[in-house]
Amino acid sequence: MGFFDQLDRSWRASNSLLCVGLDPDPAKFPAPLDGGHDAVWHFCKEIVDATADLVCAFKPQIAYFAAASAEADLQRLCAYIRDRAPHAVLILDAKRGDIGSTAEQYAHEAFDRYEADVVTVNPYLGGDSVEPFLAHPRGGAIVLCRTSNPGSGDFQSLVSDGEPLYLHVARRVATQWNQVGPCGLVVGATYPDELRQVRGVVGDLPLLIPGVGAQGGDVAATVHAGADSTGLGMMINSSRAILYASSGDDFAEAARGAATVTRNEIRLAIG
Amino acid sequence: MGFFDQLDRSWRASNSLLCVGLDPDPAKFPAPLDGGHDAVWHFCKEIVDATADLVCAFKPQIAYFAAASAEADLQRLCAYIRDRAPHAVLILDAKRGDIGSTAEQYAHEAFDRYEADVVTVNPYLGGDSVEPFLAHPRGGAIVLCRTSNPGSGDFQSLVSDGEPLYLHVARRVATQWNQVGPCGLVVGATYPDELRQVRGVVGDLPLLIPGVGAQGGDVAATVHAGADSTGLGMMINSSRAILYASSGDDFAEAARGAATVTRNEIRLAIG
Repeated sequence: MGFFDQLDRSWRASNSLLCVGLDPDPAKFPAPLDGGHDAVWHFCKEIVDATADLVCAFKPQIAYFAAASAEADLQRLCAYIRDRAPHAVLILDAKRGDIGSTAEQYAHEAFDRYEADVVTVNPYLGGDSVEPFLAHPRGGAIVLCRTSNPGSGDFQSLVSDGEPLYLHVARRVATQWNQVGPCGLVVGATYPDELRQVRGVVGDLPLLIPGVGAQGGDVAATVHAGADSTGLGMMINSSRAILYASSGDDFAEAARGAATVTRNEIRLAIG
Repeated sequence: MGFFDQLDRSWRASNSLLCVGLDPDPAKFPAPLDGGHDAVWHFCKEIVDATADLVCAFKPQIAYFAAASAEADLQRLCAYIRDRAPHAVLILDAKRGDIGSTAEQYAHEAFDRYEADVVTVNPYLGGDSVEPFLAHPRGGAIVLCRTSNPGSGDFQSLVSDGEPLYLHVARRVATQWNQVGPCGLVVGATYPDELRQVRGVVGDLPLLIPGVGAQGGDVAATVHAGADSTGLGMMINSSRAILYASSGDDFAEAARGAATVTRNEIRLAIG
């Protein structure tokens, strides 16, 4: 099953547009796990168990696993998500961007080693750097477009031929790259006006929207700006506000509480 | 010692501007290593042994290690390069690009886990995505500017305020990011005119120049376009043309031969 079919099925099965980002930072782990054996794995497993029925997608951020030399834990976690939340789309957040021969290696890592459904990729190197992710038989790519961070405007807002760079990216993804294989785009919740512009350019392509929660994006404004023609079309990500909702014994329960609140806020905004 | 000092020392100690890229692709390994135990490690070790005195830098490409689940081999290789070629700059080719909190994890991975001198990074997310690599006490970043691949013009050539995107990147690196920590830039040998433009904008900042060898860039044209005011300022990378110079028992010797030829071509062009 391709990324688009998986996502459609997931939206319907979960009745949720929430994506939980798995960014396991040992410096922020709740006291009960602090310094414990296999803490990265146990923390992530508890979060998945607590939120599996509330999400349309899980998004492990590979940087946290790489910094902790925990690639084996990431493999175990991806397999666990498959088993525990078979409906959920598994997004490997890796923001890959390299020449074609190297991108092939990254595609192999994402789809064969971690068995992800889709990978986040950076558009700066152009079409041949993204193509290996789309050409893989179980592949798909979510392309960075307008990111949620403070410096995102440094280059993404540069105007060329009357349009900012991020709209050039959006147009290229919608008109060319998505013909090669299933594409989504990353657009930050911290910029609802830009989100609306991107939606206007890409039709019903799915958007991965980080920036609600710790980064301060407004859920209702995001939903109103980002929904596709069917009222869906979004994976709205929250990481830190869910993962670290409590630093005590009740961290999993607190994560479930925070995820429920955000899922319901999204539902309410969709109306 | 910072990245700039390390590189100055390396150019002088090696009398070479050659960088050897370590892209261990098991599908291309010479017959004697085919499918053998620890083949990735043995292959890279042989290449380092054969070329250590010919290079100013080694550049392991992390994608190949990630695809082979060989992060432990990469750690071992980085430590080996330190020991076997203490003069050489160790570039982790990872093309990172993510929001600040995630970039901190990648910086930790690069500088603490792999003990690299410098990391390649992608500018698309802007200043706060690069800053953690520059703020690290032993840090440094080589920023993608004009890459060597066929699709590089898709966005890098878009003109804004009279200049293509890659020159906006070059200017931002030279005037802002390099004030935070030591920066270089990636400019492909396949585009010598653009290389000359970038050199005109960034003064004597070091350039990492891929694209000679398998990608077809001309060494003399590259040197004439890319040299800084002292006739140095470049790390000219070759990967596949050196690594896979022979598929037989003599692969290490053949790699040394190919590296010697390229080093000498560069020297001749500098004159």
